[in-house]
Amino acid sequence: MARRVTIRDVAREAGVSTATISYVLNNKVSESITPETIAKVNAAVERLGYVPNLSARSLRYRRSNLIGVVIPQTEPGKEFMFSNPFYGDFLSAVEYTARTRGYRLLISGTSVGQSYVEIAQNHGLDAIIILGIYPSDDIDAYKEAKIPLVLVDCYRNDHFFHSVGTNDRHGGYLATNHLIQRGHRRIAFVSGAVEASGVNQKRLFGYRDALDEAGLPFDRNLVFSGNVGYEYGIETARQIARICPDVTAIFATADIMAAGVIKGVSEAGLSVPGDISVVGFDDIFVANISSPGLTTVRQNIKEKGRVAVELALDAVDNPSSPKRDVAIPLEIVERDSVRSL
Amino acid sequence: MARRVTIRDVAREAGVSTATISYVLNNKVSESITPETIAKVNAAVERLGYVPNLSARSLRYRRSNLIGVVIPQTEPGKEFMFSNPFYGDFLSAVEYTARTRGYRLLISGTSVGQSYVEIAQNHGLDAIIILGIYPSDDIDAYKEAKIPLVLVDCYRNDHFFHSVGTNDRHGGYLATNHLIQRGHRRIAFVSGAVEASGVNQKRLFGYRDALDEAGLPFDRNLVFSGNVGYEYGIETARQIARICPDVTAIFATADIMAAGVIKGVSEAGLSVPGDISVVGFDDIFVANISSPGLTTVRQNIKEKGRVAVELALDAVDNPSSPKRDVAIPLEIVERDSVRSL
Repeated sequence: MARRVTIRDVAREAGVSTATISYVLNNKVSESITPETIAKVNAAVERLGYVPNLSARSLRYRRSNLIGVVIPQTEPGKEFMFSNPFYGDFLSAVEYTARTRGYRLLISGTSVGQSYVEIAQNHGLDAIIILGIYPSDDIDAYKEAKIPLVLVDCYRNDHFFHSVGTNDRHGGYLATNHLIQRGHRRIAFVSGAVEASGVNQKRLFGYRDALDEAGLPFDRNLVFSGNVGYEYGIETARQIARICPDVTAIFATADIMAAGVIKGVSEAGLSVPGDISVVGFDDIFVANISSPGLTTVRQNIKEKGRVAVELALDAVDNPSSPKRDVAIPLEIVERDSVRSL
Repeated sequence: MARRVTIRDVAREAGVSTATISYVLNNKVSESITPETIAKVNAAVERLGYVPNLSARSLRYRRSNLIGVVIPQTEPGKEFMFSNPFYGDFLSAVEYTARTRGYRLLISGTSVGQSYVEIAQNHGLDAIIILGIYPSDDIDAYKEAKIPLVLVDCYRNDHFFHSVGTNDRHGGYLATNHLIQRGHRRIAFVSGAVEASGVNQKRLFGYRDALDEAGLPFDRNLVFSGNVGYEYGIETARQIARICPDVTAIFATADIMAAGVIKGVSEAGLSVPGDISVVGFDDIFVANISSPGLTTVRQNIKEKGRVAVELALDAVDNPSSPKRDVAIPLEIVERDSVRSL
C-alpha cells in the first residue's frame, strides 16, 4: 500500500502553509484567505488524493464524520434507487467531496412510513443531504432534533435549512425556447409527476413561459406526466406518435426519459430528429451514449454534489449562520437530436 | 407519513407466524423452514416495504447495523466511483437488501494510501463488502482486526472470507462462442487492465477457450486493454477500424466499454452490426438504451447484491461457519448488435 498522503504533502503541492490547508478543509475560511488560495488547496487535495485523518478530527470535534444521504423511494418494495442514473452521478460527486473533507456517507433509500430522523440519531449523523422531497412533506422532526439538513431540488424557502438546486423554471424555458428557435410549434412536454412547487411543475412553467413569449398557445393535451423512467419515455413517445401527428418535438424533463422517448419514436417507425426532435434535462452520460446524441439542458451535477456537501459542513460548523439557497447554473448542450424546420 | 409497517403486517401478508418472519430475517433458518416459506416471507417484506426496527436489533445484538461498501478508485483524485454504471446498479441492489434486513450502508471510494480498516473500526462496521480488489492486494489487516469481509469479483480462494462473483472465464467463452457460432473468425477482445487472476484475465482465458475449441488461432494483436470506460471503447473501436480491417466482431468485457465501441465504430464511418458485431458484458441498462441494442453476457446484478449482503450477515451471525464462494450464473442476452456472416 502506498504511503499515506499527509497534510504536509498537500501544503508543499499547493505552496501554502499546513495551517492554511487546515483552515480551508475545515471551512474556517477568514477574509485573509483568497478564493485563489482555496482553489489551489482544493486542486492539490484532488491531485494527491489527500484524506484528512478521520480519528483525529472526530476526537477533536466530537463528530461521527458521517453525512447521511437520503435518496427517494416512491413505492414500497421498489428496489433500485438508481433507476434514474442522475442519482448515481450525484452520489458520486457527494462521496468524492465528502471524502476529501474526511467524511463518509451513510446512504439510504427511505422506506414508506419510516422516519429518517431515527436513523440519524441512532448513528449520530453530523448532517443529512436529502433529495426529492416536496414542500408538503413533513420535515419538522428534523428541526426538533436539530439535525442539520441540506435540501436538494426542493422549493421550500423556509430559510431554516440550506438548499441547493437549479432554476428549473429557467431550464424548462431554455429547452422549449431552443426548439421554438429551430422552428418547432407543436412541442410535447413529458415529465414525472407534476406536484405543487416540485421541479417538474417549475419546468412546466418554464415551458409555458417560452410558448407565451413566442405567442404559441398552451395545449393541455401535449402535457404527459407519469414515472421518471426509461419505460415511461418509450410508452409516451409511442402514444404521441399515434395520437398527435402534428407534434414535431418533445421536451422530456429527465435524460433517462428522453432516452426512452428516442427509443419509442424509433419503435413507432419514426426517426429522431428526422420526424421528431427531442430535448432532455440533466446531461447525465446517457445523453452522450444515446443515438442520436441527446441535446439537453445541462446541470453541473458534480458542482451540485460539491455544494451540497459544503453546505452540510457549513451547517455543522456554523449552526447559526444564515441559510443559503444555491442555484447551479444551467445551459443547453447541443448534440444531434434536434433539427431545424 | 404512513403508518409504519410492523412484523405483524408481514406475518399476515405472508400467512406465517411472526416468529417465522423473525427467523428468516435474522438468518436463523432451521431445517423446519422450507425454501417456499423463505420466498413467501421475502415477497411479503418486499411488497409491504417492511423494515425491521433498527434500534431494537442494535440493542439486542450490540451492533452498529452498518455495512461498509468499498468501491474501487483506481487513480488519485478520480471523482466518480460510478464512472461504470455497473457499480450504481450493484450498490442499489445491496442497499435494498440491507434495508430489508435493518442495515444501513456506509459507502466509500477508497483513496490511495488509505486503510479502510481504520474507517471500519472508527464506525464499528459490522461487515464490509469490498469490490474490485486483486488477489495481490493486502487484506491481512482485515483478518487481524477480525472484520467480516465479503469479496466481490475477486479470485482469492483463501477460504477466510465469503466471496461472490461469476464464472468470468465461462462468460468470456459464452461471448466469444456466440460470435463464432454466427460465423465470425476475426474477433477483437477489448477490456480494462488484465491483471493476474483478475476478472479480465479470466474473461481473456474464456475468449481463448472458445477460439481453441473452434480451431481458430489466438492473435495477440487483437487484444486491447486499457481503462474500463466509454471513452476507451470509442478510441479502441476507431483504432480497430483503422488498423484491423479484417476484424468483423468485438467482445468488450463491460457494457459501458461496448457502448463506446458502438459509438467509435459509427465515428469511423462503419455500422454495428453491418460491418462490426459487438458483444458486451454485464447487462446494465446501457445495453438496453444503446442503439442498436447490445447483445451481452448478462450477470444478475440484483442477485449479486442480494447474495453479498446475505453472506455479510452470515459472517456476522455465524463467524465460525465455513466460508462460501458463490457464483452468480451467466447467460447471453441477444439484442441487435450481432449479425450472422
